[in-house]
Amino acid sequence: MKKAAILVAGGRGTRMGGPVSKQYLPIGGLPVLMHTLGIFYQAVPEAELILVLPADDFAFWDSLCKTYRFEIPHRVVAGGNSRFQSVRNGLQALTSGTQLVAIHDGVRPFVKEEVIRESFEVAHQSGSAVAVVALKDSIRKLSDDGKSSFRERQRYRLVQTPQTFQVEKILKAFQVTEIPEFTDDATVYEHQGWQVSLIAGNPENIKITTPEDMEFAEFLISKKKD
Amino acid sequence: MKKAAILVAGGRGTRMGGPVSKQYLPIGGLPVLMHTLGIFYQAVPEAELILVLPADDFAFWDSLCKTYRFEIPHRVVAGGNSRFQSVRNGLQALTSGTQLVAIHDGVRPFVKEEVIRESFEVAHQSGSAVAVVALKDSIRKLSDDGKSSFRERQRYRLVQTPQTFQVEKILKAFQVTEIPEFTDDATVYEHQGWQVSLIAGNPENIKITTPEDMEFAEFLISKKKD
Repeated sequence: MKKAAILVAGGRGTRMGGPVSKQYLPIGGLPVLMHTLGIFYQAVPEAELILVLPADDFAFWDSLCKTYRFEIPHRVVAGGNSRFQSVRNGLQALTSGTQLVAIHDGVRPFVKEEVIRESFEVAHQSGSAVAVVALKDSIRKLSDDGKSSFRERQRYRLVQTPQTFQVEKILKAFQVTEIPEFTDDATVYEHQGWQVSLIAGNPENIKITTPEDMEFAEFLISKKKD
Repeated sequence: MKKAAILVAGGRGTRMGGPVSKQYLPIGGLPVLMHTLGIFYQAVPEAELILVLPADDFAFWDSLCKTYRFEIPHRVVAGGNSRFQSVRNGLQALTSGTQLVAIHDGVRPFVKEEVIRESFEVAHQSGSAVAVVALKDSIRKLSDDGKSSFRERQRYRLVQTPQTFQVEKILKAFQVTEIPEFTDDATVYEHQGWQVSLIAGNPENIKITTPEDMEFAEFLISKKKD
């Protein structure tokens, strides 16, 4: 069963402000993306790793890999103007014969190895596996008139990555025109009329998007080293 | 405008495991509840502070206050068998003439002063103010058959506390028989057919319910001291 993982880091990370995109910033002394590549390498050493980066950043990434003597094998692919396009570029770069692919946000370095492995197992059996977690807070839904109303939180799940798929199916799903509802890969998949399978993610698998997230990430890394 | 805040800490905190309920555990050298009382005292020094505790814990709380030389004035009221009952006990203990009351989870010590103050202002004008935050992750809804489907995350808000109300209205709202939908005070209020007003909470205002939350809380406290 030939596997791959596409780590999506094609965005410019404008929310962080600074001149360096968040995925290149160090936590625990190592850039975020190298942590993420590392955890996939540990979880599924047999999988091909594909990193989707803005084309403008290739030289910078190369220099980072040299600086940190980063030796985990991976291929770099140019991102597009949206997440959808970046993922599609990654999918098109898959080596022929790849049967299962995990798609994962590059800025989620705290995914657990067990979650990655389970995502491949479930996708192998059912076509797809999407990591989700329960809500810790109550939830309300807004309506068009600005009002809001109670919703049963047990009925909802927060969606993370990895989102892992049978390659044949996800390739077909991405052969469509992009629409705004494609906020993640699960929505592209289910646009075909297919049902996604959910698996339990790990709550600390946060997406690092703000300066506060970077601080929390530093905290999580320091815990890991204990 | 006479104000009060009810800090709800009537639960046994069984999720933490250990013999001491989470609200009494120290973060940054001070029990969680003392941080929460402290932030309300700073934000609205004129407000009466009411702490709802399990009746069995009164003597322990008293000894904690002595140990930590905790001098922020507050009254202690016995909790009930549910959050609804604990809040109701707190409401019944309000000093006559109180016009606005903030209801807040005792184990949310990281609420910002601005959020507390805004909640009183908005509740004064509109009857209620409920602190909510946007979702950072995508969201899916589960259906009875075990399937799930995409929801627009912009349409949803995660609910925190404080939830602040005009006393007259919230007292009336709590004169009902408890139902399972009463997961927070906003749902009790809207059960009267009244619409709640939402205000922007601060994302780090987490509810401390697990050992991992305690570790994160320790980290947030250490940041505050920088």
